[in-house]
Amino acid sequence: MAEPAKTLDGWYCYHDFRTINWAEWKQLSETERDSILNEFLELAKQWDDTQAKFEGSHGLYSILGQKADLMILWLRPTMDELIELENEFNKTRLAAFTTPTYSYVSVVELSNYLPSDKDPEQDPEIQARLKPILPKWKYVCFYPMDKRRDGDDNWYMLSMEERSTMMRSHGMIGRTYAGKVRQIISGSVGFDDWEWGVTLFAHDVLQFKKLVYEMRFDEVSARYGDFGTFYVGQTMDESDIKPYFSIAE
Amino acid sequence: MAEPAKTLDGWYCYHDFRTINWAEWKQLSETERDSILNEFLELAKQWDDTQAKFEGSHGLYSILGQKADLMILWLRPTMDELIELENEFNKTRLAAFTTPTYSYVSVVELSNYLPSDKDPEQDPEIQARLKPILPKWKYVCFYPMDKRRDGDDNWYMLSMEERSTMMRSHGMIGRTYAGKVRQIISGSVGFDDWEWGVTLFAHDVLQFKKLVYEMRFDEVSARYGDFGTFYVGQTMDESDIKPYFSIAE
Amino acid sequence: MAEPAKTLDGWYCYHDFRTINWAEWKQLSETERDSILNEFLELAKQWDDTQAKFEGSHGLYSILGQKADLMILWLRPTMDELIELENEFNKTRLAAFTTPTYSYVSVVELSNYLPSDKDPEQDPEIQARLKPILPKWKYVCFYPMDKRRDGDDNWYMLSMEERSTMMRSHGMIGRTYAGKVRQIISGSVGFDDWEWGVTLFAHDVLQFKKLVYEMRFDEVSARYGDFGTFYVGQTMDESDIKPYFSIAE
Amino acid sequence: MAEPAKTLDGWYCYHDFRTINWAEWKQLSETERDSILNEFLELAKQWDDTQAKFEGSHGLYSILGQKADLMILWLRPTMDELIELENEFNKTRLAAFTTPTYSYVSVVELSNYLPSDKDPEQDPEIQARLKPILPKWKYVCFYPMDKRRDGDDNWYMLSMEERSTMMRSHGMIGRTYAGKVRQIISGSVGFDDWEWGVTLFAHDVLQFKKLVYEMRFDEVSARYGDFGTFYVGQTMDESDIKPYFSIAE
Amino acid sequence: MAEPAKTLDGWYCYHDFRTINWAEWKQLSETERDSILNEFLELAKQWDDTQAKFEGSHGLYSILGQKADLMILWLRPTMDELIELENEFNKTRLAAFTTPTYSYVSVVELSNYLPSDKDPEQDPEIQARLKPILPKWKYVCFYPMDKRRDGDDNWYMLSMEERSTMMRSHGMIGRTYAGKVRQIISGSVGFDDWEWGVTLFAHDVLQFKKLVYEMRFDEVSARYGDFGTFYVGQTMDESDIKPYFSIAE
Repeated sequence: MAEPAKTLDGWYCYHDFRTINWAEWKQLSETERDSILNEFLELAKQWDDTQAKFEGSHGLYSILGQKADLMILWLRPTMDELIELENEFNKTRLAAFTTPTYSYVSVVELSNYLPSDKDPEQDPEIQARLKPILPKWKYVCFYPMDKRRDGDDNWYMLSMEERSTMMRSHGMIGRTYAGKVRQIISGSVGFDDWEWGVTLFAHDVLQFKKLVYEMRFDEVSARYGDFGTFYVGQTMDESDIKPYFSIAE
Repeated sequence: MAEPAKTLDGWYCYHDFRTINWAEWKQLSETERDSILNEFLELAKQWDDTQAKFEGSHGLYSILGQKADLMILWLRPTMDELIELENEFNKTRLAAFTTPTYSYVSVVELSNYLPSDKDPEQDPEIQARLKPILPKWKYVCFYPMDKRRDGDDNWYMLSMEERSTMMRSHGMIGRTYAGKVRQIISGSVGFDDWEWGVTLFAHDVLQFKKLVYEMRFDEVSARYGDFGTFYVGQTMDESDIKPYFSIAE
Repeated sequence: MAEPAKTLDGWYCYHDFRTINWAEWKQLSETERDSILNEFLELAKQWDDTQAKFEGSHGLYSILGQKADLMILWLRPTMDELIELENEFNKTRLAAFTTPTYSYVSVVELSNYLPSDKDPEQDPEIQARLKPILPKWKYVCFYPMDKRRDGDDNWYMLSMEERSTMMRSHGMIGRTYAGKVRQIISGSVGFDDWEWGVTLFAHDVLQFKKLVYEMRFDEVSARYGDFGTFYVGQTMDESDIKPYFSIAE
Repeated sequence: MAEPAKTLDGWYCYHDFRTINWAEWKQLSETERDSILNEFLELAKQWDDTQAKFEGSHGLYSILGQKADLMILWLRPTMDELIELENEFNKTRLAAFTTPTYSYVSVVELSNYLPSDKDPEQDPEIQARLKPILPKWKYVCFYPMDKRRDGDDNWYMLSMEERSTMMRSHGMIGRTYAGKVRQIISGSVGFDDWEWGVTLFAHDVLQFKKLVYEMRFDEVSARYGDFGTFYVGQTMDESDIKPYFSIAE
Repeated sequence: MAEPAKTLDGWYCYHDFRTINWAEWKQLSETERDSILNEFLELAKQWDDTQAKFEGSHGLYSILGQKADLMILWLRPTMDELIELENEFNKTRLAAFTTPTYSYVSVVELSNYLPSDKDPEQDPEIQARLKPILPKWKYVCFYPMDKRRDGDDNWYMLSMEERSTMMRSHGMIGRTYAGKVRQIISGSVGFDDWEWGVTLFAHDVLQFKKLVYEMRFDEVSARYGDFGTFYVGQTMDESDIKPYFSIAE
């Protein structure tokens, strides 16, 4: 048996994708729409409070394309809180005007392929990466992925050393994008249908393409990476919500 | 022809996954919602009676993510009872506010890769594992799986000895999680689309990830395991039902 | 080109799977429901007449799990009759309370891998197997399957001799289940998306699992079998229809 | 680069599959249903006129199974006419009682694997095959297919000579079905998701199974054929339309 | 690690596919339909203005087959504008009579497999290809594609030289279609589920088939190309919109 890499696990993540039922939404009066959005923003204010206390984080994103209109991303110390947040959002009046299209359950994860002499429980940088406040960078990208187990291309049959070497090269590409792309890797083995979720943030949306394309030539991705659906969009401020939903009369 | 492993089979299992139609549910008056939930809890009380007599077991779970809101899991000595339970639940008023999203039909199974001198019909420990009362541990995980038959990675063309050796190593990993993760393996060859269903219980949800991840490096999973959809959630008490469905007025 | 096996073809088969729209069904008055079921049972009586004259056969089955609630299986000497039966059923009032979920078109088939000196047109046993009256055994199982054409595992590139040897071993397993499992193999090449449909009947539902599991280690299945969706359920008598659909007031 | 085979292309084909919404259809009065069918038959009469002038052809088919109730097949000299026919049919009142389930866009194609000294533009037999009037044979079968590009089984990496030899053997099987099965091959590379559509006609529906099964052992199919969904049904005359849609009062 | 090819990226692309809900559309009065189409054409006029200033481009297309009735294609300098265009279109009254069926997010891309001494920022021909005004050629074809990473057929493990040689041969086929087929390649790695989108334009729709078929024998496609869904249709002028949607009274 190949030796698994050690992982550090931080906050639990729940990505929730929805389309808006515009036809029904438009049938409401402006007053009703306003009241529904206020109820939602009230809820979002609670999420802000949680984030202000560093007890979690969240983001709202408008996604381009028919796969979703909105993505809500919540991070919390426990999965219990995510179940409650989902339940609570589902009961809002706004949710009734959305159709769920995809969701992802995972936990922020740091792979430990490189040996370290730091104590992760004490190291503030590691702690910040395990319990990240989501950056307000302009663009977001999300996709789930697997490491392949396919004939000769079986990641899980490689030795720790082979995997470490490849992951190091992979990490090196990532580092050349420092300041351009921030990434949060979250593990989902046992939680959802792919092994990892990748959430990227950028100031320039083209950097997502450049990074993912460059990495695809790296052996880790070229031979061992399988990718799910890609979502790309813009980070929303709460002040973007009303314009996004507004209907010209 | 490779020699099949002998299996012991216990209670039949029916996993039933549903989403809640929250928009419709909210349109009911509180009195109506209460009456519908009472009808459901009345039914659940009958299931409790069955369990109290050790004539079956059942569990209610709230699932995180859009794949399902609720999972109901029933175990019974006969498949006939499961067909009746499904039919009965489908006729409840609560069911009309749910959308079926996935289901799984199987039977509790103990693989017999290791020779034993016990008479399984007499051995109380084996009997308890074949007819398990579902533990009230806090978290649940469910996924179906196959053993691969793919080119050189064909489990069913291996000799009994090769399979036994690998399963033994696999079981050893499982044993290191004793007290942390309880698992019920149920066989579904001839009953449903995958060969086995795996239902896990844990006090700490992260243990699901640790166990499944560690096992993935084991040859049995790395080369021979194919996995379906993963569901993860919380065990519900009957007292959790009303809060879960309650709508703030 | 490898020599195809000769086949004998009998009655045409149509498997029709439906879920019940319970929410709508419950909204009917008991009188309406009764009238709708009477219309259906009237139709089923015509099918009984056909079967009494040995001009076809049919069965009604309640399926466990969300894939279907009901399976109707019709066998007829011509495909024309099946098209008419489907059309006729679709126009019943009961059909309007069902959602089609799967169907399968095939024709009863006997493979002729073993040479025989019997004239199949004259042999009463062969004729009975080609034009079977469906047994009223308690449980039913249905799944479609293909023989693989995948790299080195290509059934259709094997010689007749290789295939005959393997099929003989396969048949031998089947024979050890005589009296426990009855099977009807129907060919669907050119008719539907898989190459064969397998319909099994048993007194003890566990025998389906035992048979299919044992066969999976046989080279024919292990290397060359690809399987579709499995359905399992109970045989219904016409007297089971009203209880199955009854709603407690 | 392997040399592509030359192809001759004739009329454009549009296969349109629909299910009937029987529940809604039944709610109409007989007068309404009659009026809707008359509108449709009026349209079909125009198609007849086109066919009478040899400026296209069309067929109506009732399909067995839940994949479709009706298939309409139109052949026209230009794709523009097909776009217009689809648009026109979609606007009929009958179309509102149907649900689209599958469609296929292609163009009648003759492969030119065998060298020929005929000028296809002048040869009347070739012209008739490129611009076929659909036969009124009793049964129809449709399926799309690809040639594989999979590891060692890559049709498009073979030499012209290898492909020609295999196609010749394939054609020879086809010829033994002359008078029993008529086939129209239409190419769909660049038009739809598979590379070819195969439309078969027969007096005896069993001949579809025999032909497709026999061909599956031929190397072209065994190693290089990938097949999509199979549809089988009966050819309808316009006089069959009203009985097909009639509802007993 | 294999060296990635350099790419030049131009305008962002959003392909939006919709079917029309004809049954609902027909229930409107002619006045209402007219008013809805006028609103849409008003919006399209704004897109025309953008195009007149060379600040983007767009096209309307009627697609043959059930996969879509309409395709709208927008090109803009930023992804932000595409998110806004999608949001704006979704809020029109016309959108409420459509069902989204597919969408694609990408950015116009020129591969740089051949070394060049031109400065792409200055070269007017390259700039025109990166920021293309969509041609009003009669027919359109769209499909997404990947380069394979499958066992021995792994594009991303090839050396730059091997890839360049193959791409050169591929480009040569393309060049023989100059004047017959115009193509816009757009990259979607990190943006959508396939790696590239291919949008083709032709005066004669058959040229799509000829081009794609010929290329399939080229090693780049034969061994390394994986293709998604193909859409084919006609370019619409704004003057085609009202006839397309008109209902005969």
